[in-house]
Amino acid sequence: MAVYTEVSDDDLAKFADVYGIGEVLSCKGIAEGVENSNFLLNTDKGSFILTLYEKRVNPDDLPFFLGLMEHLSERGVKCPRPVHAADGQMLKTISGRPAAIITFLSGMWPRSVQTFHCAELGGALAEMHIAGSDFTIKRKNALSVDSWRKLLNSCEGRGEEVIPGITKELESELDFLEKNWPTNLPAGVIHADLFPDNVFFRSEKLTGLIDFYFACNDQFAYDVAICLNAWCFEPDLSFNVTKAKKMLGSYRKVRDFSADELAALPILARGSATRFLLTRLYDWLNTPKGAMVTPHDPKEYLARLRFHQSVKGPGAYGLDRS
Amino acid sequence: MAVYTEVSDDDLAKFADVYGIGEVLSCKGIAEGVENSNFLLNTDKGSFILTLYEKRVNPDDLPFFLGLMEHLSERGVKCPRPVHAADGQMLKTISGRPAAIITFLSGMWPRSVQTFHCAELGGALAEMHIAGSDFTIKRKNALSVDSWRKLLNSCEGRGEEVIPGITKELESELDFLEKNWPTNLPAGVIHADLFPDNVFFRSEKLTGLIDFYFACNDQFAYDVAICLNAWCFEPDLSFNVTKAKKMLGSYRKVRDFSADELAALPILARGSATRFLLTRLYDWLNTPKGAMVTPHDPKEYLARLRFHQSVKGPGAYGLDRS
Repeated sequence: MAVYTEVSDDDLAKFADVYGIGEVLSCKGIAEGVENSNFLLNTDKGSFILTLYEKRVNPDDLPFFLGLMEHLSERGVKCPRPVHAADGQMLKTISGRPAAIITFLSGMWPRSVQTFHCAELGGALAEMHIAGSDFTIKRKNALSVDSWRKLLNSCEGRGEEVIPGITKELESELDFLEKNWPTNLPAGVIHADLFPDNVFFRSEKLTGLIDFYFACNDQFAYDVAICLNAWCFEPDLSFNVTKAKKMLGSYRKVRDFSADELAALPILARGSATRFLLTRLYDWLNTPKGAMVTPHDPKEYLARLRFHQSVKGPGAYGLDRS
Repeated sequence: MAVYTEVSDDDLAKFADVYGIGEVLSCKGIAEGVENSNFLLNTDKGSFILTLYEKRVNPDDLPFFLGLMEHLSERGVKCPRPVHAADGQMLKTISGRPAAIITFLSGMWPRSVQTFHCAELGGALAEMHIAGSDFTIKRKNALSVDSWRKLLNSCEGRGEEVIPGITKELESELDFLEKNWPTNLPAGVIHADLFPDNVFFRSEKLTGLIDFYFACNDQFAYDVAICLNAWCFEPDLSFNVTKAKKMLGSYRKVRDFSADELAALPILARGSATRFLLTRLYDWLNTPKGAMVTPHDPKEYLARLRFHQSVKGPGAYGLDRS
């Protein structure tokens, strides 16, 4: 479900007029996405996405998100481009909410990830990292290592209801991560949420990256580690080294890893698994019973974490230092 | 929220192939509709709606619903037309659910109903009634007068939590309706759920009727009475006689009312208000707390019911017997 705010016909017609996107022929609320209200608009000039930013998004972050999409698309990254209104602004208000219109990307996200998807993704991720390197607005990663202990504490030990022993296991993992987390790796703008439902394909070609609403400044290799977790495990939670090898291989053809980045991959993958385990655990404990949004199972990320804990070095991901 | 079942890429590609609708360029779950899962497909041949029928729909009714849409669209009614697969069938299975593909209608449903909407609606409703008159499959109205007492009893007196006194008031209304309900009015296929979100407009012209999943055989004037309730009350629950006059006036230009139908309008309007009051009351009491679908407020239909109880004759709806 992703329509929290309704839009009146009059407001929508005026809004479309201000953006010069033509006459609105249809407007459908889109069920994907859980943070904002999204509508697919068909007009006589083409297709667009109207997004109303809901309460979980900090309005102060919107110039970063919209500016980033524009910056990236100007540099050839396949991603939505915000439309400017007649007065030059991208951000307006509709139905009392900050709102923007972005271009529609065709393509479908892969419900079942294949190796070719991972190969395409690696190259696109590296291109995004390079294209974002001269973006001037900054945004701190609010969900990095320094926030995880607080997140665990806010579960107040109730994680035990879901996974017995999880509180102690995560405390010990956080001890390790906080002590050993790398801080001097190459950094810039990262997507930070590049799960399969945020990447579109047509046939076997990647057609676009969407949903930049977790994007922030952080170490590039951490973004790679997020993708390792999101794309390279099978439904039975086994690690698919072929997918990882393809993803990392096509990444480094565009932007090669430093020796430090390679060495750090296992701890970054542990950290990324911990971050999603923690947010899923928190959401699992705090989603009202009967809610129509089913929270993701945190256990899937515990399996990933344990895999990365067992890893001896980057070779486990199909890589070597050569 | 209206995506209960996910569809895999492979299944979707095969399904699109079977229907010959071209290559799927995008597939978005649609947030509207609460009974089924709906996806908007863009292909290189156009736009389509893919519907997966969920548990609340009886699969035995699907040939009626799909056959009706085809029958009506062949007779010029602006409504979705089911696409036939290569083997001639309309109904197939995807992701374990009965599913169909229908054509996409452009247009927007009116968030704020104006008088011109009501004028357009009246004519389209009459045209639909005439066009459906030679449709051969039959479907009983499962939500007519003979089902209302059961619905009230299934609330087990808990309606009092929402509207004190409602149980007794509805019992007395049902006594009246059951005793006086007309049975010999002109009848045929009715839509039975023609609320504003099921009617599309472009500028001031009606472009289509959708969502035939409550359609059934019943008296035409009952469908008119449903529309009186759904379209002719203002947000403050006052009755707008101008809207009613326009709606009924344009209806009778296409299909005139008999004297019996005119005389029966007040009781049909009471019955229709009672039907929606009862289903809303039931849903209000049975929607889990925290669910993301907000049930409709039953009180709005109590106000409508009381208005129609006060009516002396069809003149109250801007009509006369001439």
